Amino acid sequence: MLTLHNPVRREPEPLALSTLNPNLVAAEYAVRGAIAIKSATYQQQLKEGKELPFDKVYQCNIGNPQILGQKSMTFFRQVLSLCEYPALLDHPASKEIYPPDVIERARLYLSSIPGGVGAYSESKGAVILRQHVAHGIERRDGHPCDIDNLWLTDGASPAVHYMMKALLRNENDCILCPIPQYPLYSATIKLYGGTLLPYFLEESQGWQATLKHLQEQVDAARSQGKQVRALVVINPGNPTGQVLDRQNQETLIRFCAKEKLILMADEVYQTNIYAAGKSFFSFKKVLMEMGPELASSVALVSMNSISKGFFGECGRRGGYFEAVNFPQPVKDQLYKLASISLCPNLSGQICMALIMNPPQPGDPSFELFASEREAILESLKRRAKLLVDTFRGMEGVQCNEVEGSMYAFPRLTMPAGARDEAAKEGKQPDFLYCMELLDQTGIVTVPGSGFGQEPGTYHVRTTILPPEADMAKVATKFSEFHKAFMQRYEQNGARQNGSA
Amino acid sequence: MLTLHNPVRREPEPLALSTLNPNLVAAEYAVRGAIAIKSATYQQQLKEGKELPFDKVYQCNIGNPQILGQKSMTFFRQVLSLCEYPALLDHPASKEIYPPDVIERARLYLSSIPGGVGAYSESKGAVILRQHVAHGIERRDGHPCDIDNLWLTDGASPAVHYMMKALLRNENDCILCPIPQYPLYSATIKLYGGTLLPYFLEESQGWQATLKHLQEQVDAARSQGKQVRALVVINPGNPTGQVLDRQNQETLIRFCAKEKLILMADEVYQTNIYAAGKSFFSFKKVLMEMGPELASSVALVSMNSISKGFFGECGRRGGYFEAVNFPQPVKDQLYKLASISLCPNLSGQICMALIMNPPQPGDPSFELFASEREAILESLKRRAKLLVDTFRGMEGVQCNEVEGSMYAFPRLTMPAGARDEAAKEGKQPDFLYCMELLDQTGIVTVPGSGFGQEPGTYHVRTTILPPEADMAKVATKFSEFHKAFMQRYEQNGARQNGSA
Repeated sequence: MLTLHNPVRREPEPLALSTLNPNLVAAEYAVRGAIAIKSATYQQQLKEGKELPFDKVYQCNIGNPQILGQKSMTFFRQVLSLCEYPALLDHPASKEIYPPDVIERARLYLSSIPGGVGAYSESKGAVILRQHVAHGIERRDGHPCDIDNLWLTDGASPAVHYMMKALLRNENDCILCPIPQYPLYSATIKLYGGTLLPYFLEESQGWQATLKHLQEQVDAARSQGKQVRALVVINPGNPTGQVLDRQNQETLIRFCAKEKLILMADEVYQTNIYAAGKSFFSFKKVLMEMGPELASSVALVSMNSISKGFFGECGRRGGYFEAVNFPQPVKDQLYKLASISLCPNLSGQICMALIMNPPQPGDPSFELFASEREAILESLKRRAKLLVDTFRGMEGVQCNEVEGSMYAFPRLTMPAGARDEAAKEGKQPDFLYCMELLDQTGIVTVPGSGFGQEPGTYHVRTTILPPEADMAKVATKFSEFHKAFMQRYEQNGARQNGSA
Repeated sequence: MLTLHNPVRREPEPLALSTLNPNLVAAEYAVRGAIAIKSATYQQQLKEGKELPFDKVYQCNIGNPQILGQKSMTFFRQVLSLCEYPALLDHPASKEIYPPDVIERARLYLSSIPGGVGAYSESKGAVILRQHVAHGIERRDGHPCDIDNLWLTDGASPAVHYMMKALLRNENDCILCPIPQYPLYSATIKLYGGTLLPYFLEESQGWQATLKHLQEQVDAARSQGKQVRALVVINPGNPTGQVLDRQNQETLIRFCAKEKLILMADEVYQTNIYAAGKSFFSFKKVLMEMGPELASSVALVSMNSISKGFFGECGRRGGYFEAVNFPQPVKDQLYKLASISLCPNLSGQICMALIMNPPQPGDPSFELFASEREAILESLKRRAKLLVDTFRGMEGVQCNEVEGSMYAFPRLTMPAGARDEAAKEGKQPDFLYCMELLDQTGIVTVPGSGFGQEPGTYHVRTTILPPEADMAKVATKFSEFHKAFMQRYEQNGARQNGSA
């Protein structure tokens, strides 16, 4: 295919895996990987009336509550519908349809955001909405929040992209990430050409981080000439479901201060707390209450999202990050990065502001809001317990309590036969398990290998989100599958060992 | 600040410009740069009642029509409001508020998108919405569109980010970009570590590209061992406002075929055509009609956005790209990249589908839709003409016709005094011009240096978007400023020359 009149070097294949950026090709994102893709095919086949071993696909692979039937919060959607179509405000029926605080909030936002939802806003988000988010943070923490430190974003993902882009210069730059971790971290670290420095969460201690291990990892990396730039903490945990003790948070902050690490706190599950005696404390709050020296020096990025919590507004993509103790020139760079994509979507911005400033007692919408919130959180709590009980009742399965977030992450004892079969197929054993689970039951999960796990251990992540009406069925199908899987591969393993 | 017990190498300043990714620090994005930031300060000051030399800020720096008072399209917003708050569909007043085709469309989308706007969709966009976009593309081009080749996106920016991330491996990889260009290209090429290979548009030939120059640039780059990966074309032009002739498009396609370049066609202004005798042809259509060999081999990315056109729905961030003749493994990588951010926002996806499938003659909403569209496009046409006439009436200014898009890009003869003053301040002369224009008149523009221009030439980009009621005032203020600027710096220059 070379042309003769232009004899200089040129890629033989301009558009092929071999000539793409190798970091892109190497990046992995299991949450939407092969199992999720196959589940979409099954869903299509069911729709077309094809006979399958199951009559429904249960999407337990992703924290996406509304796809499983969770209702949206009425107050949020009412305000958003008026912002979409402001002419409704002048319609005589509007007062029948909308409570007065909904109309008032919509009028406030529409009069304060130039051009409404149809115009680009400031790249960090519309001022009024950042103010409302800041008020919510202040109410939550009892400490001031400067809107200059706030970036509204399309979900929490952009915060992670921005930080990785800013901090990673080459593969010598490391980010300390919990293992298991949400693969947004491993994927973006790879995409932007850095190195993930793992620290293992202690499953036997309820998935807490231990200082000794963190220190060893940092010291080992530095002795190899690596730069350790930041520490990622996910609290409440994903995929692990733990809620950190405040003391543990203080330990992590002191470690960041001592080692001059930027603390990246993924706090998107901050309203998803189920365990008795557990509370969410933001890293901002904890930091601010550790004395003026630390409070004014540790660089912290606190991330939040509208996709999680009890509201689960995944589809509109909203979020924010607060950058604490960031020097102005660095903030200017993050502003520039945001400005290159102009601005986050306005509906997502508005929804984030509503979440951080929901109706208060006495407001016309408060009672409905509170009852909707209560119903969802209580139901999530029941579902979490049902799932954990289910896993604890299975042979060879251990499962920590789901203290918070939206996931159970049980540990499986994998029969030798399954490990052999997986090895033969070039897969991880827990991938084999999850794929067979999908093929036989329609339940979509993510193998622990997609999040990272201690070598030789095997896990499955499942959300706690199927509706309560389905949950018992999911639990039964899962248990039956597990029993059959174990039997089959224990026999296979035994047979192979016998014939070896 | 070094601690003694940990004597290994460590960044002295973990969070400072000196330790950030240098590609981020080097990237520039003038559209939201210093002039735009200062204009926001002025706006705030006016709001607080401060006396300034002007009583209003005219944001002509960015294609953001609704911030300047352009009304949104009723049909789009009606459907979107129902999708936000589906309970409205069951309200007895809904039939008074909404025409039947609006209700029908909302019902179709809500019943076809699992979880509605509150759930993550497929990472490439909800199937029904991709189908509607595909139908729109087919209607536009007269050629089939496979939804497997479509990615819905948050505005057009993600398409550019994805392509740059995928194609650029190191600074040896080059992307051919028009100069002047929209700085999303220069910024992302820098961010992802590649090299911008410029090709100059011929101002004297209505900003067309010339084959001879393109060939010289590619040959020169290759002779230095560079890899030329892709050719960016912006049609209609930004900041230059030209509409490419079909013949010119064919030439560019043949050039990409011969040089094995990926054609990145930025077609976000496809409905913004004002010049008599000019029409928009998508590169997809032109390619498909150049014979089966080319049609099946040239890799093309065609990008569109909901932010431009006559609708200008900037704030909700919607867009799509169609990847034509991309090998499946490469499409898989682009899918993965999209999946790492889960999905584009649903309101933006829906708006994109509505734009590509608007009401048709006979539909209840058609008449209103058509009259709103006509009014906006006719007004834009009048404003484009008024601005061009204004610039042509200024001393030392040349201005090509605004054939399409949303911008005039007049060329200024810069007095020596202004060039000296700018040099003294370490600025570009057109930056000085635009900053003084803002300081004295409140008109916000972007200097030509933010887009790139032939050395020794100076330009200003201004949108054609101020409302017609303001347009005469903007034109007068601009003319008066220009006259005073020229006089001042011609005198300064003369005085300095005299005293030298």
